[in-house]
Amino acid sequence: MEVQIAVAKVNKYAVSESGDTLEVVERPSGGLSVVLADGQTSGRGAKAVSMMVVRKVISLLAEGVRDGAAARAASDALFTEKHGKVISTLNIASIDLHTNTIVLARNNPVPVYICRGEQIDAHTEESRPLGTSRNVRPVITELAVEAGLTIIIFTDGIIHAGERSGHPMNVGETIRSIIEDQDPSPQELADSLLAHAISLDDNRPADDISVLVVKVITPSGDNVRRMNVRLPIHAK
Amino acid sequence: MEVQIAVAKVNKYAVSESGDTLEVVERPSGGLSVVLADGQTSGRGAKAVSMMVVRKVISLLAEGVRDGAAARAASDALFTEKHGKVISTLNIASIDLHTNTIVLARNNPVPVYICRGEQIDAHTEESRPLGTSRNVRPVITELAVEAGLTIIIFTDGIIHAGERSGHPMNVGETIRSIIEDQDPSPQELADSLLAHAISLDDNRPADDISVLVVKVITPSGDNVRRMNVRLPIHAK
Repeated sequence: MEVQIAVAKVNKYAVSESGDTLEVVERPSGGLSVVLADGQTSGRGAKAVSMMVVRKVISLLAEGVRDGAAARAASDALFTEKHGKVISTLNIASIDLHTNTIVLARNNPVPVYICRGEQIDAHTEESRPLGTSRNVRPVITELAVEAGLTIIIFTDGIIHAGERSGHPMNVGETIRSIIEDQDPSPQELADSLLAHAISLDDNRPADDISVLVVKVITPSGDNVRRMNVRLPIHAK
Repeated sequence: MEVQIAVAKVNKYAVSESGDTLEVVERPSGGLSVVLADGQTSGRGAKAVSMMVVRKVISLLAEGVRDGAAARAASDALFTEKHGKVISTLNIASIDLHTNTIVLARNNPVPVYICRGEQIDAHTEESRPLGTSRNVRPVITELAVEAGLTIIIFTDGIIHAGERSGHPMNVGETIRSIIEDQDPSPQELADSLLAHAISLDDNRPADDISVLVVKVITPSGDNVRRMNVRLPIHAK
């Protein structure tokens, strides 16, 4: 089998720095973790918060700390530094080759979608962002690695897309229409969801938006690990 | 313009853990750094060394430390811990959006290839791995971000491919033939170079092999950052 991870990420319109930070780290026991944080507000201040949270989490994961404990530590650190005045959402998706599971940790009111074939489930259990108080715990979901499993995680830019123009996005329906249309690759799925959100915002995203898709496929072609990053840049 | 980064990475035959570690980190002033280390020997011990080096470097880069200083710090830390008995190569490729340059730092005797159109240059300045002594400095190359620039970085698994069977790889010629054949995407280029090395090793890589390609293209399609990871896994 092969686990494929895709990310599509855009800044709020006319803001040069995204408040969303996403990084990937190798787990010491094998596998990868993808860590996504969305700092309160947008621009430079939000970026500093989300980078602080992601750095904290990935440094702990790299030391072998469990995902839930890493999320709680990042929350305590943020609360201690900002006294509850600045918060950040956090999603961790870990492919753990030691237990052959995918572990999702969520400190984010925005739901996560888990799809198996035609079945699409929104995981909407209540979940608080980091830094809101002491003792904030993530919602943990552990899934066996099995072919056909697709996980869709995003920041609240997706949820709020189109609200300004009075046409808010129905995320579940949008995901269903993308998945039913074809058997999309993770990148196609992430790109389509992001493109739909941007179009609802009249091509001027009202917030930073990040979409992360994890898909398990079978069979894999070869034994090669691959990574691909595309970074648009603007001449100064 | 858009900077595209591609990685293709394979373990030594019949070894479950690669001694090569590669991670990507966001730079606090904008842009990304890709950090690749190859720990001495292969398997678990080498992995621990290369992970230690990469963790050290990315945590410093995330704090805003310059690439050369981060490399020197990682070398000192490794030398202090292992007394010169364990060494590791290190390559850093940074896309610095603050200066609009690509900065290459190399502590690796293996050359880096820099291509502009048909011109392919091997950068072979002498360079020592980390941890060999005190005061090890990287070779630094700074390049303007310009369309058509392609940078090819790899670990010594590429250089040694085919030696066992007496048909060592001519890396420069292989790169030329791949580039002349078509206008390959970075992923196609990385995949082709890796596939050629594996075939010279009779499909049983004699060492861990990692290939990293950075390419500047113009124009970019949209303002979306994308990332894609493919992780083959084996049921236990």
